[in-house]
Amino acid sequence: MRIAIDAMGGDHAPKAQVDAAIRAVKEFSDLEVTLIGDEEKIKPLLSEENKQITIMHTLESILDTDKPTTAVRRKKDASMVLAVNEVKQNRASAAISSGNTGALMTAGLLYVGRQNGIDRPALSPMLPTKDGNGFLLLDVGANMEAKPEHLLQYAVIGDAYMKKIHQVEQPRIGLLNVGTEAGKGTELTKGAYTLLDESSLHFVGNVEARDLLDGVCDVVVCDGFSGNLVLKTIEGTAKMLFSMLKSELTSSFSAKLAAGVLKPKLTGLKNKMDYSEYGGAGLFGLKAPVIKAHGSSDANAFFHAIRQAKLMVDQDVVSVVEANISANRRSEHE
Amino acid sequence: MRIAIDAMGGDHAPKAQVDAAIRAVKEFSDLEVTLIGDEEKIKPLLSEENKQITIMHTLESILDTDKPTTAVRRKKDASMVLAVNEVKQNRASAAISSGNTGALMTAGLLYVGRQNGIDRPALSPMLPTKDGNGFLLLDVGANMEAKPEHLLQYAVIGDAYMKKIHQVEQPRIGLLNVGTEAGKGTELTKGAYTLLDESSLHFVGNVEARDLLDGVCDVVVCDGFSGNLVLKTIEGTAKMLFSMLKSELTSSFSAKLAAGVLKPKLTGLKNKMDYSEYGGAGLFGLKAPVIKAHGSSDANAFFHAIRQAKLMVDQDVVSVVEANISANRRSEHE
Repeated sequence: MRIAIDAMGGDHAPKAQVDAAIRAVKEFSDLEVTLIGDEEKIKPLLSEENKQITIMHTLESILDTDKPTTAVRRKKDASMVLAVNEVKQNRASAAISSGNTGALMTAGLLYVGRQNGIDRPALSPMLPTKDGNGFLLLDVGANMEAKPEHLLQYAVIGDAYMKKIHQVEQPRIGLLNVGTEAGKGTELTKGAYTLLDESSLHFVGNVEARDLLDGVCDVVVCDGFSGNLVLKTIEGTAKMLFSMLKSELTSSFSAKLAAGVLKPKLTGLKNKMDYSEYGGAGLFGLKAPVIKAHGSSDANAFFHAIRQAKLMVDQDVVSVVEANISANRRSEHE
Repeated sequence: MRIAIDAMGGDHAPKAQVDAAIRAVKEFSDLEVTLIGDEEKIKPLLSEENKQITIMHTLESILDTDKPTTAVRRKKDASMVLAVNEVKQNRASAAISSGNTGALMTAGLLYVGRQNGIDRPALSPMLPTKDGNGFLLLDVGANMEAKPEHLLQYAVIGDAYMKKIHQVEQPRIGLLNVGTEAGKGTELTKGAYTLLDESSLHFVGNVEARDLLDGVCDVVVCDGFSGNLVLKTIEGTAKMLFSMLKSELTSSFSAKLAAGVLKPKLTGLKNKMDYSEYGGAGLFGLKAPVIKAHGSSDANAFFHAIRQAKLMVDQDVVSVVEANISANRRSEHE
């Protein structure tokens, strides 16, 4: 199996990508990697020649400031575009990039294409929970507005992903809402509630934003606008609390001393909140896995994104989704 | 000026309400309070007779589990309903309750009524920011779905509130969105962006959920579904982090010792996140202030809700909103 990696996106390119690739091919003997980017920069980072790693040279790249749709259409030799094109040409089974999210969504849709039964792909990160198991949130912004049937499709994708990649036997599917009672929320959530309730999935009902990190369910579905708000509110709140904590803990000499003792504990807490080990955010619903690694991904986070993509191919999550979509269609007509 | 207080809602009723009322009438010589609830329970808490405090006896109350619309219609003698009725009958200038939020919104709308120029009231809490100034978020759930003009109305309300109650000279108005660039988001945010941009308000553009607690603006407008998600995500994230912090800090003997030294610092941090001093969540856009105090409000939080209602009446925020709505209508046609 070969995975195509955009070696030019993100804050630590190309070192994070190259180091991650080296580690991944060591760990998985059946894995081959195509690193796409500036050969002059990539080659020196590969200490020795490695048969499992190929470099595809390009100097073009999509910037974070580029307008996604225009950039994907015009920059046909950009490392990200070449990566998804490898999947399109069947030379790779999955693609990974930590570059411009909007551009990757556009490129994924355009080059890899939607899989049967899915109207719209969903951008789907795993988020941390107290118990360490995490939950999959979809969609966080691939589509700003959604219809009830899209949320059902997201649920089918999430169900397959959690079963196959996280070994959750019967994933609990929750519908993001403003209250737990049925009948809450918008026209969208009311419609989605009915569809989910009638589906073959293990639907646990509406879930409130305040309970997500407690691990009330394994998969949370919502429209992309809402998911994006939740994702960024978690990020912003955690960031502010850690920064306030830091300034409180260094505000006096005795506090500094005590904080020194506690430092490993606080680092432990921060690591628990760090979800890079879950991999990147999947652009799910395409014909093959396309993974958006976080822009700040280091080699470890990137390695986990590679591992995630490989597992998805190994487990053939795309086919499982397709089968489940058909099954849910059938059950609707029974 | 008289304020009507539902003395039966919330976790600490009626003690929190009575203690807060005693403190408030001491602090504000021109204030009179009507405490509505079980006289037998309220009277013993008033150490001596106080001319500024009147008890209105009732045994009926709306429960948190009651269905809002039904409860308000059927329980006409419920303490909350009587409180808003005091405003309707012009015997009180504002009403406060820490009971069932949905019921208070229904009762406020039904008894107090919308003010001129506002199509829909907004539930509007102040939330904490790093610099301690806080920001007003509206709407967090009075209406699940909104049109662009509603968001403009929320902005006018927020502008008046921050000017008059928080002495912000030129409140920065932000539109909650998934990116800062114009043209981001849903049909709603795109439409609202145009209206806000053309208004006489100090519109600073789209704001992202991750930047809210950094204090990027003073007023954030959004539909009630989105606002509710943001509010509850902040709550849930802060709660999880504090609980994880606590368990990390007590996980070894040396950590416990160090945590002892740091306790005042951590309490300080928690207090900074505590927004009870900002008062309750206003149900803004009605003919008179109706304040929803948090269900867990203690006497201090309740006192600040009373203070907030009094300031709103003193500053005649309702008239300021009305004038600004007309001004923005005029400017649209210039």
